[in-house]
Amino acid sequence: MGNMWEFYMPTDVFFGDHILSKRGPVMKILGKRALIVTGRTSSKKNGSLDDLTDLLEKLDISYVVFDEVEENPSFASVERAAERFRDEDFDLVVGLGGGSPMDFAKAISVLLKEKDLNVEDLYDSEKIRRWLPVVEIPTTAGTGSEVTPYSVLTDQEGNKRGCRLMFPVYAFLDPRYTYSMPEDLVLSTGVDALSHAVEGFLSRRATPPSDALALEAMKIIHKYLPKAMGGDEKARRKMLIASCLAGMVIAQTSTTLAHAMGYPLTTEKGIKHGRATGMVLPFVMNVMREEIPDRVDEVNRIFRKSLLNFLKDLGLYQRVEVSQEELERWSEKASRAKHVSNTPGTFTKEKILMIYREALSV
Amino acid sequence: MGNMWEFYMPTDVFFGDHILSKRGPVMKILGKRALIVTGRTSSKKNGSLDDLTDLLEKLDISYVVFDEVEENPSFASVERAAERFRDEDFDLVVGLGGGSPMDFAKAISVLLKEKDLNVEDLYDSEKIRRWLPVVEIPTTAGTGSEVTPYSVLTDQEGNKRGCRLMFPVYAFLDPRYTYSMPEDLVLSTGVDALSHAVEGFLSRRATPPSDALALEAMKIIHKYLPKAMGGDEKARRKMLIASCLAGMVIAQTSTTLAHAMGYPLTTEKGIKHGRATGMVLPFVMNVMREEIPDRVDEVNRIFRKSLLNFLKDLGLYQRVEVSQEELERWSEKASRAKHVSNTPGTFTKEKILMIYREALSV
Repeated sequence: MGNMWEFYMPTDVFFGDHILSKRGPVMKILGKRALIVTGRTSSKKNGSLDDLTDLLEKLDISYVVFDEVEENPSFASVERAAERFRDEDFDLVVGLGGGSPMDFAKAISVLLKEKDLNVEDLYDSEKIRRWLPVVEIPTTAGTGSEVTPYSVLTDQEGNKRGCRLMFPVYAFLDPRYTYSMPEDLVLSTGVDALSHAVEGFLSRRATPPSDALALEAMKIIHKYLPKAMGGDEKARRKMLIASCLAGMVIAQTSTTLAHAMGYPLTTEKGIKHGRATGMVLPFVMNVMREEIPDRVDEVNRIFRKSLLNFLKDLGLYQRVEVSQEELERWSEKASRAKHVSNTPGTFTKEKILMIYREALSV
Repeated sequence: MGNMWEFYMPTDVFFGDHILSKRGPVMKILGKRALIVTGRTSSKKNGSLDDLTDLLEKLDISYVVFDEVEENPSFASVERAAERFRDEDFDLVVGLGGGSPMDFAKAISVLLKEKDLNVEDLYDSEKIRRWLPVVEIPTTAGTGSEVTPYSVLTDQEGNKRGCRLMFPVYAFLDPRYTYSMPEDLVLSTGVDALSHAVEGFLSRRATPPSDALALEAMKIIHKYLPKAMGGDEKARRKMLIASCLAGMVIAQTSTTLAHAMGYPLTTEKGIKHGRATGMVLPFVMNVMREEIPDRVDEVNRIFRKSLLNFLKDLGLYQRVEVSQEELERWSEKASRAKHVSNTPGTFTKEKILMIYREALSV
């Protein structure tokens, strides 16, 4: 919405069935030895790890598979991996899976290049000057991490903290990898993509190009997320497109308070990231309306009058037991989050507490 | 529309009033000596050349101003400039003005780096491997060249021919530079931007991200082009945004037959490029409807039922004297243009001739 804006999204994005075998050979220029970063199981089940290793073998790129990335990766596990691979020489890092391995790949690509840095240093932009080139291959349709410079890690105190590292050089999106996702994961990741599009559109840092991408992403998600949950392959394909567009949006705008407010629901209550953000988002929007009523109304219009009803109908809301002490502590923390500055409206600790109450009593 | 697609748009784009003084210092990393490529007069009148030289002086970047770029630059003038600067060492090239200087800047940036190449070599992608970094500063709202890798030059036989070179590293868009454009130039450049958005949306190479950008660009142009012609500054600002979005579109899709058909109207009849393309576009769309009726209808819907009527109301159509021999020759040439493969519908020489007749009798 600002009068001054920047658009920067240098990742070369490739989309399609069997895209790794068709366009993957561009990776050849990145070097001769790759670290593949992935989770324990899904990339083996959905065929993506086999496709990737077949490709690397054809390209004569040797590789090591690190398959220990957990959901919401911690500082400690990034440090451990950096320690383990400290003496190996890699030319590139490939992140394969959902947001967790893709974010992990960005973090380790810095630590393997700048061997004196530790994970805390990733939050000091002055220190982020060199890294191994990163290639990202998403197998869920949500995070958009394949087209953003962000990495979100969980620190020793259990706080989720995002840092800005580098844009991936290449992103390869093969919708076939998303066909085996269980319904619940389609919902939580799909609502993460939804939140990126909505938050980017409502952010104080919204720009004309990011608005164009956000509007299209919201329309796709409104139309296809319900069908994607039901297993429809065309709909899952569309959701992978939408999550990528929404990633391009937050690459420009970053996220808003809805993301910051969702974090403790994930780290302390185990609610999946996309679900946690989506639960609070409609209530954050009610406060945003103070400052940008037209934009908030436009979002609700795209979701057939009410984003809240759309999310309720998907079965997003779930019962969560919280204490008054937790709500107070979360609200205090959210009121100090850097996200507040991007978020239109006035968000006092009291208002944030009220939003949590509303979101948790749907 | 394809099932497989790529999105690549690595230019770092900055937009806003006084953007050169605010964000221009990022250019410092590009080197110590710049060649500024511009036209004879407008960049002096609209203040952009002064802003640029002030910035370069502050950054300690020395510069040479080459202000001899003509409209629709020829092979010969690019060769002459390459010859003149052959023995100088530049670190970067800045294109300042409309599409002509911006396209010229890309061409010369290759020839000053690879001194054994000539202009014809620019059309052999194998030979395009190194170039000086290019910075583009548009002062019209139309070409979008600031965010594309294309350069269109006119060869010895008078044919306009586009080649694919490199993406600019930076683009700086200051809407103030467009406020002094005469109404007729606002129309012809604005319709160029319109054609990019429409053609990219209708191209066989359309992609989901380019569609998102194209739809937004069309909506902005429909709403603001008439007011921009009248001199409204907010509307001119919006048109500069739209032309940039539309440039991002054709960077993915390239243009269609409407562009190829417009070229002889420019080179042989002196009709401005945007105007020439716009005149034939609605009739090209009628043939495209054979293959993609829904998309053609969507375009017409955005322009209040009829793109043709929108363009007529702007006063786009003008009388042009053409002979039967000319129409035959142009149609023959267009039917062999590489653009045909991107263009939905079957375009025989006879159909193309009919389109010219329709466009020239509005």
